[in-house]
Amino acid sequence: MATASGHTQAIQASRVIGTDVYNTDGHHIGSIEDVMLDKLSNSIMFAVIGFGGFLGIGEKYHAIPWASLDYDPSRGGYVVSFTREQLEAAPVYDISELSSTDGTKVRETSYNYYNVPPYWM
Amino acid sequence: MATASGHTQAIQASRVIGTDVYNTDGHHIGSIEDVMLDKLSNSIMFAVIGFGGFLGIGEKYHAIPWASLDYDPSRGGYVVSFTREQLEAAPVYDISELSSTDGTKVRETSYNYYNVPPYWM
Repeated sequence: MATASGHTQAIQASRVIGTDVYNTDGHHIGSIEDVMLDKLSNSIMFAVIGFGGFLGIGEKYHAIPWASLDYDPSRGGYVVSFTREQLEAAPVYDISELSSTDGTKVRETSYNYYNVPPYWM
Repeated sequence: MATASGHTQAIQASRVIGTDVYNTDGHHIGSIEDVMLDKLSNSIMFAVIGFGGFLGIGEKYHAIPWASLDYDPSRGGYVVSFTREQLEAAPVYDISELSSTDGTKVRETSYNYYNVPPYWM
């Protein structure tokens, strides 16, 4: 959230892509494959996270609501407060499903799974 | 803006990068070099636009408030409602200035130049 002083911090999307992601147990759970932007508002919708290690070939991705990611400078990566079990049971998608014009249901399902109220509702 | 039905549309940041940008006169004015994300909120802050053609080597960029860009499917690019003269006179920056932790002033200056109220104020 913006502070009362109106201070801002910014980062290039191209630098976010490729950044490691950890869970709160400190396990490395994957890296950011892409950032999904909302075309109809000014909002960042998802981090698209590849978990190749336990999903196999890695063509499926988790779409984690952007607001669920916190950057941890000491790790040089993002931290999400989900357990490995929660992540393993989470819905996974092709990037094309996540960005398809009739993908609203898919996007809602991901927000609901991670218990983040969809900001567009 | 989100519609009443809660319909959403999404696009990967990696696909936005490299997209052409036109002004309302139909002139090709550059392409999107990167997307600047707000680290303290869920917001997309700027399109960082390279105008190599008339700035020379191209190491300086325009930071155009994200809300000022409209996607035009018929052109396959974004359109901004600024004249070439407005863009030529606009402030230009290194990407490192735009993303620096003490860059709030620079970010405000860009929003003010393009007449977009900074959403973080």
